[in-house]
Amino acid sequence: MKGIVICSGGMDSVTLAYSLQDKIDAMTILSFNYGQRHSKELRFAEDAARDLKVPWHLAHLDVNQFLEGSALTDARVAVPEGHYEEESMKATVVPNRNMMMLSVATALAVSSKSDAVYIGVHAGDHAIYPDCRPEFVTMMSKTAKIATQGFSVPDFEIVAPFVNMSKADIVDLGEDYNVPWARTWSCYKGDMWHCGKCGTCVERKEAFALAGVDDPTIYSV
Amino acid sequence: MKGIVICSGGMDSVTLAYSLQDKIDAMTILSFNYGQRHSKELRFAEDAARDLKVPWHLAHLDVNQFLEGSALTDARVAVPEGHYEEESMKATVVPNRNMMMLSVATALAVSSKSDAVYIGVHAGDHAIYPDCRPEFVTMMSKTAKIATQGFSVPDFEIVAPFVNMSKADIVDLGEDYNVPWARTWSCYKGDMWHCGKCGTCVERKEAFALAGVDDPTIYSV
Repeated sequence: MKGIVICSGGMDSVTLAYSLQDKIDAMTILSFNYGQRHSKELRFAEDAARDLKVPWHLAHLDVNQFLEGSALTDARVAVPEGHYEEESMKATVVPNRNMMMLSVATALAVSSKSDAVYIGVHAGDHAIYPDCRPEFVTMMSKTAKIATQGFSVPDFEIVAPFVNMSKADIVDLGEDYNVPWARTWSCYKGDMWHCGKCGTCVERKEAFALAGVDDPTIYSV
Repeated sequence: MKGIVICSGGMDSVTLAYSLQDKIDAMTILSFNYGQRHSKELRFAEDAARDLKVPWHLAHLDVNQFLEGSALTDARVAVPEGHYEEESMKATVVPNRNMMMLSVATALAVSSKSDAVYIGVHAGDHAIYPDCRPEFVTMMSKTAKIATQGFSVPDFEIVAPFVNMSKADIVDLGEDYNVPWARTWSCYKGDMWHCGKCGTCVERKEAFALAGVDDPTIYSV
């Protein structure tokens, strides 16, 4: 089977690609530049594709003009520090990001006759991000099938294998597949090392601790 | 109310913008460059925004790499001539185009606190394009609400007012709003004048004839 894996270069989506190696004969890794504050993470997505010996595509979503006010794309908005599930983390929402990415990935799936598009959303994202919840993934898969009927392969679907897993569960799974954690990037800031203080750094540290796995990440604090 | 109108510069979406003038206090016209064979039509979308005195945004969808094989984006594929509803017109399908456009428009709607996104798909598109059918629009609207829950305005929706109208009905409606037909572009080729032979030119001529409205378009044949 053929599959498209959406990969940001973070630990979730890199684990997703690694864990699908056996299942997908022909994998393509697809990453997005949507005007992130930094695009450092994309280098890690490319590394994953190289390590897995699969093609890597980078798509540009020219939506900066729409995304005023998100800390991930607007340099005037500070990256909030603290725990990932706090209200302040709403500043890190890029409106409708997953729907945009899945729509483009579905177009690629039609063009390449792929059976599925995979996305690495997980349960820890549910509190803040509506487009990471199971009901969104289910509806999006149905809608994409309707949108491409007669053009996509008959059983085409959008799949989020981690949607009910915690990030610690993902670390556990990644260990089984020897994911090179140091070759993944989480931090919302794009400095030399992970900052250790933004929501996603806090979540990264916590996931390794909960999973009881040694964290090889270098943090500034 | 605030609304985003997706407009290609064609007669359907320009009529859509004109017909919504009274309904929408703050309209934004949104057009897409998705690597069309020609981008001539975009000039007509900008004209519509200027004529209606509303802001115009142009978003780039960098999906050329995905769209191999569509006559609309791949210069190696001939633009088919003949009637719009024929099987040969499938060559003009850009995979998942409406889902991609609506996803980006929804992001803009969230960011601008708009109440709705409008798209000008109509009944004549149903035979060929799955993402122009009523069930797609309904599902897409539901999915976009779920994807943006807590961020979009509470009653946000995606609306396709022409989804059950023919193109001749749209000409009729456009006459009521004094749509300047000569300032709209349909032809899939991007020459000086409308070619008069491609599917969308044939459909354009037919719509004026059926509506009994004088067609001001200059055709090469």
